[in-house]
Amino acid sequence: MTSSTIELIHKHGSVRDYKPDPVSRETIETIVAAGQRASTSSNLQMYSVIATTDQAKRTRLMSLCGGQKHVGGAPAFLAWCADLSRLTRACDMQGYTNEAGYMENLLLAVVDVSLMMQNTALAAESLGLGICYIGAIRNNPQDVIDLLSLPKQVFPICGMTLGWPVESPSIRPRLPLEAVLHWDTYNANDEEYLRAYDQDMIATAIYKGRQVSGGEDQPETVYGWTEHSARRASQVIRPHLREILLNAGFEMK
Amino acid sequence: MTSSTIELIHKHGSVRDYKPDPVSRETIETIVAAGQRASTSSNLQMYSVIATTDQAKRTRLMSLCGGQKHVGGAPAFLAWCADLSRLTRACDMQGYTNEAGYMENLLLAVVDVSLMMQNTALAAESLGLGICYIGAIRNNPQDVIDLLSLPKQVFPICGMTLGWPVESPSIRPRLPLEAVLHWDTYNANDEEYLRAYDQDMIATAIYKGRQVSGGEDQPETVYGWTEHSARRASQVIRPHLREILLNAGFEMK
Repeated sequence: MTSSTIELIHKHGSVRDYKPDPVSRETIETIVAAGQRASTSSNLQMYSVIATTDQAKRTRLMSLCGGQKHVGGAPAFLAWCADLSRLTRACDMQGYTNEAGYMENLLLAVVDVSLMMQNTALAAESLGLGICYIGAIRNNPQDVIDLLSLPKQVFPICGMTLGWPVESPSIRPRLPLEAVLHWDTYNANDEEYLRAYDQDMIATAIYKGRQVSGGEDQPETVYGWTEHSARRASQVIRPHLREILLNAGFEMK
Repeated sequence: MTSSTIELIHKHGSVRDYKPDPVSRETIETIVAAGQRASTSSNLQMYSVIATTDQAKRTRLMSLCGGQKHVGGAPAFLAWCADLSRLTRACDMQGYTNEAGYMENLLLAVVDVSLMMQNTALAAESLGLGICYIGAIRNNPQDVIDLLSLPKQVFPICGMTLGWPVESPSIRPRLPLEAVLHWDTYNANDEEYLRAYDQDMIATAIYKGRQVSGGEDQPETVYGWTEHSARRASQVIRPHLREILLNAGFEMK
């Protein structure tokens, strides 16, 4: 049971190495228009995307996004934003007050923009383009807000690099389906699936660390998904986010 | 410039009327496996989906989701969840502590699950199935948590009905591309686009209200998107969400 779209979906991998060839404005318009066709809660369309192909701006974004080379190297960058401000403008036009101060409003907008960006990603990939999501846009969100002149109630949720891939991306295994798809009730007894996935990931040797001591290289240690994820989960990441969201007009009551 | 996937994307509309024919377990597994191929931040896969075809459970979900008939009427229902609990289990296995108490962890998981559900939606539609997102799963999230036995750190973000459409869904216009796609910096001077879109939506007569007074039906009034959206935005929706998220172990510091 398959389709050309399912086959396309299974070819997805993040692309970090791009040809210098530009992506035309028409192409970006085509894929973002496809993005707009995703479902949106009550048709409120609580999203905006800022596209840039400007080299100076992309270089600045690269330094704001943890120095990831492909942010500067990809010919185009899309900054996907949760946008409550358009509804405030609609309220102003019609004489209402935007009650945007609740956690629900943030969730609505984050889901809306995420559905849109995934539609856009698949549309791009169906034309031979490659993409990479850039969560590191939340490393320095206030600087991104300033750089892109985002008004109050607009917040950068995720970035996306866009361009023509140098080579087909590698595709890594995912968790066993049984670990993420539950029937009727949640099954938390998933250790066997996690251990099986550890072996899948160890086989790829994607997660490995090299200890350097006394100037001498030590052999790399390859480890599995639970170790990788536990290391990540044990780090406090982006603890500033709540405060910057509040400053940006997302009250999250 | 198009592709078969872009053409599929442009055919999307929410389906609320389903044939009684079941959706097989194999089909659900195929589309959710396609969902798993979406990008996920650092491969952390912070999502779970609970699928049910059980009529009693779907009927209960219908009443929890604002009585929307298609929740009970569609042969299958998917509850898409932000899931921080799997990382806690990975930490337990490896001797780490999950620092999940930040707003960033919620955003990461909501983006992760949203990308996955949109991939799944398109995979479903590519097989001829129809879907409808159910944001109303957040109307009574604690009851949904109880019904689906979701452990701490798992929260239902969005529902999805799934089945074979009785007819092709209607497709409604979206905001002009210029209103959502900005170049280099955000353009808040969008009133002309919003007014143009008002006219597009008035032409569809989707937004209309009938006033009933003294037992007599009054003529329906058709209005545009800014009026529709301002009415919605002026309502406080789901103000309980933050507290239930906190109770569910999402600290959002």
